[in-house]
Amino acid sequence: MIIIGEKINGAIPSVAKAIEEKNADWIRNLARIQSEAGADFLDVCSAVVGKDVETLKWLIDLVQEVCDTPICIDSPNPHSIVEAIKFCNKPGLINSVSLEGDKLDTVFPVIADTEWQVIALLSGKDRLSEDINVRIDALEQVMQKAREYHIDESRIHIDPLVFSMGAIPSSYSGYATVARYTKEHYPNVHITSGLSNVSYGLPSRKTINQAFLILAMQAGMDCAIIDPTSRDMIGSIFATEALLEIDEYCIGYIGAYDEGRFGVKKA
Amino acid sequence: MIIIGEKINGAIPSVAKAIEEKNADWIRNLARIQSEAGADFLDVCSAVVGKDVETLKWLIDLVQEVCDTPICIDSPNPHSIVEAIKFCNKPGLINSVSLEGDKLDTVFPVIADTEWQVIALLSGKDRLSEDINVRIDALEQVMQKAREYHIDESRIHIDPLVFSMGAIPSSYSGYATVARYTKEHYPNVHITSGLSNVSYGLPSRKTINQAFLILAMQAGMDCAIIDPTSRDMIGSIFATEALLEIDEYCIGYIGAYDEGRFGVKKA
Repeated sequence: MIIIGEKINGAIPSVAKAIEEKNADWIRNLARIQSEAGADFLDVCSAVVGKDVETLKWLIDLVQEVCDTPICIDSPNPHSIVEAIKFCNKPGLINSVSLEGDKLDTVFPVIADTEWQVIALLSGKDRLSEDINVRIDALEQVMQKAREYHIDESRIHIDPLVFSMGAIPSSYSGYATVARYTKEHYPNVHITSGLSNVSYGLPSRKTINQAFLILAMQAGMDCAIIDPTSRDMIGSIFATEALLEIDEYCIGYIGAYDEGRFGVKKA
Repeated sequence: MIIIGEKINGAIPSVAKAIEEKNADWIRNLARIQSEAGADFLDVCSAVVGKDVETLKWLIDLVQEVCDTPICIDSPNPHSIVEAIKFCNKPGLINSVSLEGDKLDTVFPVIADTEWQVIALLSGKDRLSEDINVRIDALEQVMQKAREYHIDESRIHIDPLVFSMGAIPSSYSGYATVARYTKEHYPNVHITSGLSNVSYGLPSRKTINQAFLILAMQAGMDCAIIDPTSRDMIGSIFATEALLEIDEYCIGYIGAYDEGRFGVKKA
């Protein structure tokens, strides 16, 4: 399972405050704890309109001061992303592209001959749609464009889209159908999700997020944007990998437990 | 989801002690807290060899003093079960029958013209087998016998068997295959499990049990023997029912949360 640490995001009020106050220690600490918790990438999102690139540079520099976990550049603006690639010491992940606007044609040529990986959201040209066919059509267009730029399947993370199940009861089944279709047709593609959307507007969100994570893994999800310091989420990932026989005889599960990554905290 | 409360079981050391010391309050309390937590049945297992019936009577009487939740009579001895039925104020559940010995022919005639429900384990005549075909063959034999005694499908809970995944990596996939086969051929049958077996011998058992519960529900499990006072397990059940669209628009999930059955405890 590929874990993208979600905590450095300017949309989170405490992080927005740290950005505003230039509280470098706050950001460095978020990088350190997520890296130590075993994150494979650290998502970095400024959420500052007008100063996106400048803020991304400040955040990325701070992360790279304290750890060498690859950066996941997170911005709705593909031009910010392309700029921010230059600030990174090594190839990371881009969050995200889609059919919207010029995203694909801005980002794909820049990463074509690199080792950068990329998350592609299966939204339509001008809207998110829960329609399975719209999402599968988006998948085919993204994969066509990837072929044009010789971007290997293994560098692509598909996000089949996760809707709040308070509004869209079929949120999980739609996700699972698109994930299974994707894995069947493009077996080397990764399947990811910004899974916390599923519980938007509902109480005890973590309860739902955790159940969604487990069910989504069964549908082929092998990458997720989560809080890697949540011991419950990490425990669920290792348990589910063992139950699904990705981790036969629980070798990974027992190892992670022995390292103290989940379960009752040892003194 | 049908919840069978697991806490009154003489195989649990604290319960064994209460039975030995005739600590009636201990048993009454276990009955009360599980009933209040919303259990649909309360499992009652003596685990006292030689005094099974006598102990079952003592336990069942205590449970019935404090709540009217139906009893789930739990004994490896079908003759104890048939005796214990007489102690119950109303029809409950029997845990369990299988092809082993004379279990089916001892229990089925007694419950034939009643409203008693019954758990049938899919073990072979003389052993538990992880072989799918052995389990499906056991299912067909149980269902054939049920037809002979006119026991309706809806009164039967099939346990496809749960093995420790430390020993049998395919524990979940075997369970899911047999559960799906059962639901396809006998849609009105319930699917249950003594799910905690899955984590036997492994650390942080609750982490595994919770993930198994969620995955098993996706395979059709609609009944489980669990600790109904575990807020995490109850939360997982309600979240999964919503994700699987058994509970559309999260009506049940929100209701259970508002009743304080899971999530952060309210003051």
